[in-house]
Amino acid sequence: MNGKLYGVGVGPGDPELMTLKAVRLIRENQVIALPGPVPEETIAYRIAVQAVPELAEKILLPAAMPMIMDRKKMRENHKKAADLIEPYLQSQKNVIFLTLGDSTIYSTFHYVQDILADRGYDTELVSGIPSFCAAAARANLPLAKWNEPLHILPAIHRTELALDQPGNYILMKSGSKMAQVKERLRESSREVTMVENCGMPEEKIYRSIDDIPDDAGYYSLIIAKESKCHYASVPNTIITT
Amino acid sequence: MNGKLYGVGVGPGDPELMTLKAVRLIRENQVIALPGPVPEETIAYRIAVQAVPELAEKILLPAAMPMIMDRKKMRENHKKAADLIEPYLQSQKNVIFLTLGDSTIYSTFHYVQDILADRGYDTELVSGIPSFCAAAARANLPLAKWNEPLHILPAIHRTELALDQPGNYILMKSGSKMAQVKERLRESSREVTMVENCGMPEEKIYRSIDDIPDDAGYYSLIIAKESKCHYASVPNTIITT
Repeated sequence: MNGKLYGVGVGPGDPELMTLKAVRLIRENQVIALPGPVPEETIAYRIAVQAVPELAEKILLPAAMPMIMDRKKMRENHKKAADLIEPYLQSQKNVIFLTLGDSTIYSTFHYVQDILADRGYDTELVSGIPSFCAAAARANLPLAKWNEPLHILPAIHRTELALDQPGNYILMKSGSKMAQVKERLRESSREVTMVENCGMPEEKIYRSIDDIPDDAGYYSLIIAKESKCHYASVPNTIITT
Repeated sequence: MNGKLYGVGVGPGDPELMTLKAVRLIRENQVIALPGPVPEETIAYRIAVQAVPELAEKILLPAAMPMIMDRKKMRENHKKAADLIEPYLQSQKNVIFLTLGDSTIYSTFHYVQDILADRGYDTELVSGIPSFCAAAARANLPLAKWNEPLHILPAIHRTELALDQPGNYILMKSGSKMAQVKERLRESSREVTMVENCGMPEEKIYRSIDDIPDDAGYYSLIIAKESKCHYASVPNTIITT
């Protein structure tokens, strides 16, 4: 029987936010893939090795899949990563692919997963703490209460950034366009909190738009909440938790 | 010095999806609050006790805060829960309040947190795996790729359910209005997956609208993805992961 490919989220930075399952899968398996040309230099590795020091003794596969402008080249990289992993699956070894945050949200893992699933291998996703949950926790702020909708936008790719839906917004990876993003946030009259490098030693929390520097880092996450809760009315359904 | 109040997510059901931090906080502290009239009968307890059996030996506080129609009565319940917890904080004990899923998203914890923070106590949120991440992982489905927005709606409270934004939708707690929700999903032409009782022994996954029963359970979570990805264009920014 072939081995299985696992896409495992290691959370956003704090090694204590790794799940018991992530820790167990790393411990129980010998082959670990990491998203970068030098496995030991990836953020996912640096997080996981703190919680599971024996990671350093494993077979580490460099699955380098940078997001680049050349679509064809990018596809080649995905195929290369899949080709790197496949022989281990064939030789009945599971491969644990570690990803930052959660493995279902904006993860490059799914490219490799698609290729290897098409080639007939079993795959499994294992949840990790998403960066936006951890950022909200670090800012000691509920992301969504009661019946507030929550909208997550990978802002970096959106030239037109509308913040016009009811509910709260999360803007991810706004770093490179921060000046424009700040302008939109000001227009929206929302309550803004930004967490930079969440859970890392250099973490920084900003509590107003004016405090946010225009040259904020890539791992910046903005929480933009409605100033007034439009949903604080009595619900028309009885539910219990 | 007073004790500190922690709101700790235990994830959506599978005890292995608990974080190392949740496990440590339960182990290191004696007083654990649970959201229900009988602590041992809450889902949060049943999840956590499987990963941390010594939870059964702790002081368990019943912080019952059902969501009910009577707003005044609900506020009284929040105050009662806070009053139940406060003496332990005063006697320098931390209180670990366990919540299902993540503690920042649709958790009743923030009501108690607000009250006790106003009374001058330190509080901290500790992330857990949100139900929608775990549901996507169980369905082996990425929630959002590349630059797809992601919208999370607590559908039960929304009489008007629009699914007209670009990106993917998550509908939580649709159980009681499933027939209407299914109608809207059909109109939206989205690819629909529903996960019922995610991570629990009675978990069930539905891969099409037609398969979803009108009487689906309360812990049902719907993932409605755009049939075609409108965002698959080459990004105009080079980013690395």
